[in-house]
Amino acid sequence: MMLLDLTLVEAADALARGEITSEALTAASLDRLEHAGKSLNAVIALDRDSAMMQARDRDAMRAKGAPCGKLHGVPLAHKDLFYRAGRVSTYGSPIRSDHVPDVTATALARLDSAGALDIATLSLSEFAFSPTGFNQTTGHGRNPWSVEHIAGGSSSGSAIATAARMVFGALGTDTGGSIRHPAAACGVVGLKPTLGRVSRFGVGPLSVSLDCVGPVARTARDCARLLSVIAGSDPQDPATSAVAVPDFERALSGDLAGLRIAVPRAFHDAPVTAEVAGLLEASIAVLRERGAQIVDCPAPDLDVANALGQAVMAVEAAAVHRPWLATRRDDYAEVVRSRIEPGFFLPAVEYHDALRARRKVLQDYMDVVFANADLVHLPMFAQEVPTIARTIDGEPGEISATLAALTRFTRSLNFLGLPAISIPAGFTRNGLPAGFQLAARPFHEATLLRAADAYQRDTDWHRKTPPL
Amino acid sequence: MMLLDLTLVEAADALARGEITSEALTAASLDRLEHAGKSLNAVIALDRDSAMMQARDRDAMRAKGAPCGKLHGVPLAHKDLFYRAGRVSTYGSPIRSDHVPDVTATALARLDSAGALDIATLSLSEFAFSPTGFNQTTGHGRNPWSVEHIAGGSSSGSAIATAARMVFGALGTDTGGSIRHPAAACGVVGLKPTLGRVSRFGVGPLSVSLDCVGPVARTARDCARLLSVIAGSDPQDPATSAVAVPDFERALSGDLAGLRIAVPRAFHDAPVTAEVAGLLEASIAVLRERGAQIVDCPAPDLDVANALGQAVMAVEAAAVHRPWLATRRDDYAEVVRSRIEPGFFLPAVEYHDALRARRKVLQDYMDVVFANADLVHLPMFAQEVPTIARTIDGEPGEISATLAALTRFTRSLNFLGLPAISIPAGFTRNGLPAGFQLAARPFHEATLLRAADAYQRDTDWHRKTPPL
Repeated sequence: MMLLDLTLVEAADALARGEITSEALTAASLDRLEHAGKSLNAVIALDRDSAMMQARDRDAMRAKGAPCGKLHGVPLAHKDLFYRAGRVSTYGSPIRSDHVPDVTATALARLDSAGALDIATLSLSEFAFSPTGFNQTTGHGRNPWSVEHIAGGSSSGSAIATAARMVFGALGTDTGGSIRHPAAACGVVGLKPTLGRVSRFGVGPLSVSLDCVGPVARTARDCARLLSVIAGSDPQDPATSAVAVPDFERALSGDLAGLRIAVPRAFHDAPVTAEVAGLLEASIAVLRERGAQIVDCPAPDLDVANALGQAVMAVEAAAVHRPWLATRRDDYAEVVRSRIEPGFFLPAVEYHDALRARRKVLQDYMDVVFANADLVHLPMFAQEVPTIARTIDGEPGEISATLAALTRFTRSLNFLGLPAISIPAGFTRNGLPAGFQLAARPFHEATLLRAADAYQRDTDWHRKTPPL
Repeated sequence: MMLLDLTLVEAADALARGEITSEALTAASLDRLEHAGKSLNAVIALDRDSAMMQARDRDAMRAKGAPCGKLHGVPLAHKDLFYRAGRVSTYGSPIRSDHVPDVTATALARLDSAGALDIATLSLSEFAFSPTGFNQTTGHGRNPWSVEHIAGGSSSGSAIATAARMVFGALGTDTGGSIRHPAAACGVVGLKPTLGRVSRFGVGPLSVSLDCVGPVARTARDCARLLSVIAGSDPQDPATSAVAVPDFERALSGDLAGLRIAVPRAFHDAPVTAEVAGLLEASIAVLRERGAQIVDCPAPDLDVANALGQAVMAVEAAAVHRPWLATRRDDYAEVVRSRIEPGFFLPAVEYHDALRARRKVLQDYMDVVFANADLVHLPMFAQEVPTIARTIDGEPGEISATLAALTRFTRSLNFLGLPAISIPAGFTRNGLPAGFQLAARPFHEATLLRAADAYQRDTDWHRKTPPL
């Protein structure tokens, strides 16, 4: 287990120095994936022999002095909606249980080029719907801090496997918080880049105007390395931007002098609990200690962006699912289907207007939060991580309130297209992780990562190993 | 009248050499606009004193040796949906009769910077709907070759004023052919650039996914000069492209050696009349004489692009018009309202799918027409320019057929986003102009202009002065 307690960057650097082998790391990873991975519902599939063969190949390449990328020999695994040609990609649904894509996601291809191993496919909410990790077929993702609690979703397996030391990092996708939710619930870092920063080519689509690909890892530095590899324009995803990709690790100075962080403290009131608000304040204090200037700011409006984002997602998801709903409607969980089907009834003019409003809503948001600041500090979950039971049993009104407490502070950022990062901020009294969120101007991921890394230098939440 | 028979480039160059004055040109232009302009329903408004003052200013600047742009002192006028701060912009509707914008269209600002004069606002179809120039309030635009015939639309005034020697060129907008239709009907050149080539900031919108701003002028060379001035990215229109803008005039070598022009001859059959087909063949012969290699190609599918483009336009127009329809529904011509209102009933998923299909439909089109060619040669109108009566009286089925004959070969290019140019090709037996169309790969306007200019060196259709 010691090997797997390394962070991704520590592991990659130890590999580069020849102190450890990819074979040893991969064998340890596979053991964890086969045991804890299955019991926590984190793994969809793995092929031990193929993974070990690749690991030995990587070791042999390095021994021969071949040029090695920044992730050479590091075992990773990803949410099972990243396509790899010839390998089943289930998208968390029985409808896709025999879907073998003939293309490989650009993000995976870039990780391959950097030498990373891709040793398993990881669980997710059915068709990437649900912030809790709900999956009728494979069962809920289980939180490695307590199996009774949600792991968050939809990139459940990515966060579970990273938090529970099965792999050093994982890609997820985030349409309304699906990278940040499970990262926060499991106590790891989740980064949703700017819309257009990372190619979605070869990735199962949920909502093309909102979907972002990004990393889950234990540290901001790990995320910086992963983002440096996967980011950048891709002719196969015309929505990717030509904005230059910096070396994100270079930004990690540890020093936040000159950085202004806006805090809309009105967000620390209900529905955010006093306990969560206390952890938010503690995280702010750490950032201030590191040199950041904390700036009060009014609470930006989230309701408009949330509502418009919901409309956009409803339509785009309905369009994606139309052919499958026509032929395999009974293979959807009812809760998933009932979120998709209203999209068929939305008039085109509403969808058009929602998309067209985006620029103005973004400008309004920027004017409020970035008028005098480089970053904005936001809550992640309004409350402690709930039990699975609380998200499925009981009054519909209560369930809705629980889900709203999970998504309130994440969803708007997808409509706005802004980059955001979820960072472990301690634990609530129920023993589950809590997180906070930073968001930045478009394409300013380096600033996010700089702040998150500095914060993690003075905190050790990400060093704590979950019991399961 | 001799002064006004100069082409735009001839006039600009004569001004630059000091052979003529802007004052003389502008006075002549204003006279024509005030008389023929009004009788042909080409002019909405002009301010003689202000125009003359500007002309004298331009002359004075040049006399002082101030740096002068490529259009210094040239009188132009534009379709009355280009905003100029402080000046009424009617959009061809009584609903906008007192609309005074507080911004200036980027395209106008760029013409201003090049020294051009903007001396009148020109007529258009109500809200830029209608390929015939229909306007319930101002009356139909009248063709300068015959007042009984349509001038084409929706940029009617731009083509009438240019053809009838009132101004040297004019901007129009083209959502389904609205630059190319009136240019062809009046016997001048109309260029619809690539979607994203010219900013739409400050331009009355019809359908944001289709609208293109472009020039109408007597020659391809004139269009090249105008496009060089107005093209290029604009932060105020996020849909503009960063693709570099060449000096389009430099491309005009007169030599078409090495240029391959695809001809889908299946398009020369019905509904294209034998008379029009003969003029198309004659234009092809001229291009071949100039060195172009004529390549047979299959007829690309137009129906899918036309249908998807119609769906997109219906939705986007409905969104634009929703507030006005809510308060001033009776101020719409019924024929215009009946084209807008169906857009409210289209489901969002259809609109989404239409937009998403665009890339694939474009690729299919390109594979057919540009597999072995640089340009594609297409019909403009399938039939002779009709009388106004034929477009408004009679059986609805006949009217539809007449309108379809006008738009069949233009509309698909807007959905595809491709650049296209309409060029005078002679006259049909009714004495009205006929045209042909060339289209190119995205951002290859220089190739279009090179071919059109070469063609015009060997033809003199554009030198013929209409009687009115």
